[in-house]
Amino acid sequence: MNERDALRRLAVDLPRAGDDAAVVDGTVITTDMLHERTDFPPGTTRYTAGWRAVGASLSDVAAMGAEATAAVAVYADETFDPDAIDEFVAGAVDVCAAVGAEYVGGDLDEHVEFTTATTAIGSLPDVDSDAAAGPGVVSRSGASPGEALCVTGEWGRSAAALRLFERGTETAVERANDLFRFTPRVADGRALSGVATAMMDSSDGLARSLHQLAEASEVGFGLDRDALPVHPAVDDVVGPGSGDAVGEDDADPAEGDERFELAAHVGEDFELVCTVPEPALERVREACPAGLVRVGSVREADAGVTVDGEPLPDRGYTHG
Amino acid sequence: MNERDALRRLAVDLPRAGDDAAVVDGTVITTDMLHERTDFPPGTTRYTAGWRAVGASLSDVAAMGAEATAAVAVYADETFDPDAIDEFVAGAVDVCAAVGAEYVGGDLDEHVEFTTATTAIGSLPDVDSDAAAGPGVVSRSGASPGEALCVTGEWGRSAAALRLFERGTETAVERANDLFRFTPRVADGRALSGVATAMMDSSDGLARSLHQLAEASEVGFGLDRDALPVHPAVDDVVGPGSGDAVGEDDADPAEGDERFELAAHVGEDFELVCTVPEPALERVREACPAGLVRVGSVREADAGVTVDGEPLPDRGYTHG
Repeated sequence: MNERDALRRLAVDLPRAGDDAAVVDGTVITTDMLHERTDFPPGTTRYTAGWRAVGASLSDVAAMGAEATAAVAVYADETFDPDAIDEFVAGAVDVCAAVGAEYVGGDLDEHVEFTTATTAIGSLPDVDSDAAAGPGVVSRSGASPGEALCVTGEWGRSAAALRLFERGTETAVERANDLFRFTPRVADGRALSGVATAMMDSSDGLARSLHQLAEASEVGFGLDRDALPVHPAVDDVVGPGSGDAVGEDDADPAEGDERFELAAHVGEDFELVCTVPEPALERVREACPAGLVRVGSVREADAGVTVDGEPLPDRGYTHG
Repeated sequence: MNERDALRRLAVDLPRAGDDAAVVDGTVITTDMLHERTDFPPGTTRYTAGWRAVGASLSDVAAMGAEATAAVAVYADETFDPDAIDEFVAGAVDVCAAVGAEYVGGDLDEHVEFTTATTAIGSLPDVDSDAAAGPGVVSRSGASPGEALCVTGEWGRSAAALRLFERGTETAVERANDLFRFTPRVADGRALSGVATAMMDSSDGLARSLHQLAEASEVGFGLDRDALPVHPAVDDVVGPGSGDAVGEDDADPAEGDERFELAAHVGEDFELVCTVPEPALERVREACPAGLVRVGSVREADAGVTVDGEPLPDRGYTHG
């Protein structure tokens, strides 16, 4: 049984576990675990790890359209190095501050490898019941054919970082750490609350996210490949001239494929993917600090999930 | 650096991390991680593991005097066995139900050993600020000399379970699982809110808890050894006749020492330790479903932490 099947099983038992976060009495809560081996490539600083791990949970709060309130973390390692713990906490504190939340501590545990479990909570100011579909909450299941498919930010950032970590030079690793420290889209999620009809964060990549949204909303999606905003770092790591900028005139179709692969299939970008009724698009776009780009349309379910008319494979990053 | 020093370091950075749980805008939040190797002896069922892990976080909510609202868990293992996950979730759901909270799901992760990270949240109905010392919250730092030192429930339950897991027979293991599934003292914590001047849960054992409370409140404690309620299972595992009941007439002083060792130093009983002004004692005792027993007095700090007048060593279970 793979993780997705197992999660589906949990979702069957617990209807509220199928979304990015659970909602109880107007409080949103979400939890994640990350490991050194699978989530933090060699070269990842503890500061970056603290930022990214807590950021991943804050991103789930953002995907619900909630205000992020607070986060906690368990820090587990073979030994407790005070400097490493200080760095991790500093990263956790800073990512919380970046989205107006508060890092309020956690727990330490001895473990065979560096592992962190993070939990974030958020509030839904307009909600007075615990219904997951109550006002203010944006679930994954409300998309309708004819609406615009939109994304925040730029894509492929984490994929580029992974390539730079592999490269291993001091400069590459430093840049990779910068790229790994994403800003959770809490402000954008708030702006989209009440406007977006379905939303999730892209922790498993755009392709997989679209398939998950399609299943939850019982719709299809038509993605316009050229409309997807690709992070500039992707161009630095793609193709034979990787490390140098690739001029548009030199563009090789294979490089275009690789570019799309990194932007749409690798994942872990923690951007928001959402559906918005056309008439609301202009207004909400201006309210999103990370930018909101229309990358396609919601279709009927039997149209499936396509990119430029061809089936988009349900393939992406699977958590270690 | 051991865990306590490291936790102290986190507490210095983050003043709110020194208590059993953090408080933000009237919401209490706490997180823990448990591992198969250190926390779940061979024979522990996944149902018991789910109950106990989520229960440990609910116990921290109880120690703040808060109402428990919800819990989440990350379930990490080498493989995802559907039956094991179902059992774990059933245990988590049941322990939440036992204290009026809701288990709202979590996350799955592949890991080198069975590991679970749990988070519980609670609410403080009377609190309208985020001050950790606000009305309704019971911190560790409010004890004053002259007050009564009290505990809920019966002690040594988990220590007895550990011995029974070691014994390894089917009957012993079944009983050990029962003993491992404690009821978090949420109802008692609520009753003590506004009455107890300092409170914590006993996850590190009574002796260590008393030293921690003494340090936080800048007081001493005089524990009356015979007043400590010892769980009946302790008598089943102590001394040469372990497995049979030990009659009071046969009592051997060495067995008495072992009895106290299991009840006061092993820990993981998840009972509440608190200080209560004498005039309030009678009234609050009746409101505690687990029972509230006076086991000593709060002294001046320079009297230290003693049992029957002798120094009580700051020794107990240290989380693996």
